[in-house]
Amino acid sequence: MAVNQSPAWQKLSDLAKSGIADKHMQSWFSEDPARADRYAIELDEIFLDYSKNRIDDKVLAGLLDLANQQDLSNWIMRLVTGEIVNDTEQRPALHSALRAVTGSGVTGYAAEVQLDVESQFTKMAQIVNKIRAGHWRGYSGKPITDVVNIGVGGSDLGPLMVTHALQVQQSPVRLHFISSIDGTQTSNLLTTLNQETTLFVLASKSFTTIDTLSNAETAKDWLEERIERSQTLMAQHFIGVSTRPDKMSEWGIPTENQLLFWDWVGGRYSMWSAIGFPIALKVGMKGFFQMLEGANLMDEHFATAPLAQNIPVIMGLVDVWNINFLDIHAKAILPYDARLKYLPSYFEQLVMESNGKSVNRAGEKVSYKTCPILWGEVGPNAQHAFYQLLHQGTQAVMSDFIVPVERDDFEQHSGAEKDASLHKQHHLALANCFAQSRVLMLGDAAIPASLKASYDSPFKHYAGNQPSNTIMLKTLSAKTLGMLVALYEHKTFVESVIWEINPFDQWGVELGKLIAKETYACLAEGVSVDSFDASTQALMKRVK
Amino acid sequence: MAVNQSPAWQKLSDLAKSGIADKHMQSWFSEDPARADRYAIELDEIFLDYSKNRIDDKVLAGLLDLANQQDLSNWIMRLVTGEIVNDTEQRPALHSALRAVTGSGVTGYAAEVQLDVESQFTKMAQIVNKIRAGHWRGYSGKPITDVVNIGVGGSDLGPLMVTHALQVQQSPVRLHFISSIDGTQTSNLLTTLNQETTLFVLASKSFTTIDTLSNAETAKDWLEERIERSQTLMAQHFIGVSTRPDKMSEWGIPTENQLLFWDWVGGRYSMWSAIGFPIALKVGMKGFFQMLEGANLMDEHFATAPLAQNIPVIMGLVDVWNINFLDIHAKAILPYDARLKYLPSYFEQLVMESNGKSVNRAGEKVSYKTCPILWGEVGPNAQHAFYQLLHQGTQAVMSDFIVPVERDDFEQHSGAEKDASLHKQHHLALANCFAQSRVLMLGDAAIPASLKASYDSPFKHYAGNQPSNTIMLKTLSAKTLGMLVALYEHKTFVESVIWEINPFDQWGVELGKLIAKETYACLAEGVSVDSFDASTQALMKRVK
Repeated sequence: MAVNQSPAWQKLSDLAKSGIADKHMQSWFSEDPARADRYAIELDEIFLDYSKNRIDDKVLAGLLDLANQQDLSNWIMRLVTGEIVNDTEQRPALHSALRAVTGSGVTGYAAEVQLDVESQFTKMAQIVNKIRAGHWRGYSGKPITDVVNIGVGGSDLGPLMVTHALQVQQSPVRLHFISSIDGTQTSNLLTTLNQETTLFVLASKSFTTIDTLSNAETAKDWLEERIERSQTLMAQHFIGVSTRPDKMSEWGIPTENQLLFWDWVGGRYSMWSAIGFPIALKVGMKGFFQMLEGANLMDEHFATAPLAQNIPVIMGLVDVWNINFLDIHAKAILPYDARLKYLPSYFEQLVMESNGKSVNRAGEKVSYKTCPILWGEVGPNAQHAFYQLLHQGTQAVMSDFIVPVERDDFEQHSGAEKDASLHKQHHLALANCFAQSRVLMLGDAAIPASLKASYDSPFKHYAGNQPSNTIMLKTLSAKTLGMLVALYEHKTFVESVIWEINPFDQWGVELGKLIAKETYACLAEGVSVDSFDASTQALMKRVK
Repeated sequence: MAVNQSPAWQKLSDLAKSGIADKHMQSWFSEDPARADRYAIELDEIFLDYSKNRIDDKVLAGLLDLANQQDLSNWIMRLVTGEIVNDTEQRPALHSALRAVTGSGVTGYAAEVQLDVESQFTKMAQIVNKIRAGHWRGYSGKPITDVVNIGVGGSDLGPLMVTHALQVQQSPVRLHFISSIDGTQTSNLLTTLNQETTLFVLASKSFTTIDTLSNAETAKDWLEERIERSQTLMAQHFIGVSTRPDKMSEWGIPTENQLLFWDWVGGRYSMWSAIGFPIALKVGMKGFFQMLEGANLMDEHFATAPLAQNIPVIMGLVDVWNINFLDIHAKAILPYDARLKYLPSYFEQLVMESNGKSVNRAGEKVSYKTCPILWGEVGPNAQHAFYQLLHQGTQAVMSDFIVPVERDDFEQHSGAEKDASLHKQHHLALANCFAQSRVLMLGDAAIPASLKASYDSPFKHYAGNQPSNTIMLKTLSAKTLGMLVALYEHKTFVESVIWEINPFDQWGVELGKLIAKETYACLAEGVSVDSFDASTQALMKRVK
């Protein structure tokens, strides 16, 4: 039986149709202000308010019934103990095991892999510490000053997002990121760097990613302009991070410069492994482990908290309600802190690559909607860009507001007067965050009585009733960032369990890679394109 | 009569239901390969292929009927001659008049404003040339080396997007952008700059934008750490760009440092005015005017080409078809060139702030969908992030692929060998672009015969039939960028005419600003929050 034919789903569907789907949140809040306390969960330095959703106790009970019907608790156990939850690839999905080295005991396969994990973190620490101490030298004997991470997707977004979020921490080396296949980033970056003091990190799970390898080739060409001995070049200017030591060796990276991870770490979950190398360079191994500790805290919460008090479970279930019963198919990620600039992109990959599926685990096409479109931007900036559509458009959108309560980073490099300005700016950011979720919820009802008259125009009508979550972090730190990302990972898994899909494979991107190879052969080597459609043929002719 | 009750709309609706909405593009291409030539338009250095849409000649004829019924040609004339098309604010929307100074004659109010426009561009050129020549000095007599643009929304995204796109051009000063209200960017940037050689540009249409003014105050505090005389500080370290000289003077910016634009330039269209100051600093006034020339070329095409051969008209109409008749409510913007990294954000603002409306010009709530969710990312990177959802998700998505045919920027700083690598990388980018639009269109039918067997799994099924446009630029230059942006501006206007909405106001964001002010007073000054909803009260208590 498909999940949308199941009793629990049908009950929710009936509930939605019984008037709840048309009810305005303003009524719920005026009838029951206590919902603000009831629909909130706190865990250590993270706090979730989910009361600004179109839910009540009956809906929540129905969603928890659905979770139980779908055997969610058991799936969570299967995930964290390392059973094969990625069935199309016959693998566990054990990113949580990478975090367990810093925390409490794990069981099953998750325990078996601990020695491997530790050994790689030990090797990673040696290299990180050597570089940070200025003891890693380039070919001419000078210490490394610039490290360039070459990777794409999961091998880029995590380190990029985290190092930007923790930007205030001063690193002894400058970090750079190259991801895009087209050569722009490489071309422009290399002109600003010096071969003597630049180290490249090649990060690729399969070590076959053409984007990464083509950028690596360009980097190698650039190094070869100055370095004659290939052995020196590889030993002193390249580090590899991959699951494939054989392919790294083949490319020329010496064993001592190879950091490993394993096929049970999905690319989009890999920043917790040695793929997080740039993070450790930025904040030190200590900071890197603090991030793992934060995630581990969320893992334990996810594995042990009752479903009704379980942050990822509740966030996942409420989104299922929004998507499948209230017909909302877009979600905005809105951090109110410019340090989280890359968080929306990171979550776009995490969520859409995981749940952008339409076939269930049994291989049947599903007849219900799965993953929504996710997008976002630093909240205050988005207010000046796309909030118009959130407030007055024709599409329902759910939003996640993410904001640190306190800032502890301004003091580090401020004069007293500037410091006061900056703290005022932080309060402005908070005020904007709260004001926006309030107006999205209330609509016209948020207009102060004194201004009602000037808002008496159809063009100044705000429908409200747009659901949102607010996630508050005590401060933005390696630890809270770890908690936050693990929360979204698990929330995404919860949704996949309800939808009965495998969130850990990504067959949807495989065919494109293959066809791109074929297309490149045609473009570069003049292979005939007669078999292609007329549009693609015409486009290719314009290039030739 | 609402447009969705009109004969032309009904006819399209019938067409969609008569089987077209269920027809697969693969069939269309095999039945009629000539569609690739027929559904393409070229204008100077820009080429649009719109054949990979779910349309045929009947659909196009129906869409053109709809355009005629909605009086589109007349609306275009009204727009470009400066009639009041922004009726809720009683203003024309004359961004095209800013571009006319470089091109051919205009009429109506658009002609009347030319002298004003020229005088500001003359003043802008003087300042730009002075800074670029090293003749603009800071308080201690040293030439300015760093210029920081403080602005948000339209006063940030345009200059940021264009200067990044034209990054290969070497500017004599370094450019920086501060936008976000929370102080992060300011705090971190100022530690890297020197008061003696830093100039700030305050860019704000209303000069009341709290985000910009609060960042400006922080910048001023920082300058005051070193500069005692307020007059020197203002005269040598601040330039203002606004429609409000009175407010700039009040803030202390001397008249000679004020650049003006006018209320008929919408914020999201303002990079063509003095808001484009950072662009001119980057590429010189000559480059800035080349961008205007490109846009002017598109303006003239929009105003004079027959609707059926009019690029913005066709793109707008095809999107209306996708949205209102094929039920597609998300659009991906996918540039295959990392220099266009900020283009998706720029288009998100342009399109969603313009058409994220649900009330028509008569003030009636519309009963059809308007603006879709727009989002995007550099295409090759997005392939490793969210393309999974495009290929195998449950939501239909339309995509715009944007790619330069040639690269003329690599030579400027490459050795011969590296140059060959980079050109290979460009071909890889092109190949990926063509491969993805092909697989999105064909689905399983793109699988080569030799591989069919290994794709015999429900998890490796690609439904295809996802529509896309491909826009090719000869190269990426100031001129083609001008053409491209003007194309999207006009396309957005075309959709607004069909939907009978005003794309030039943004009432949806006004209430939030007001409420944020009220909320800030509560947070900062302890004003009572009893009137707020329980959720917002609880969140605010956590801050206090």
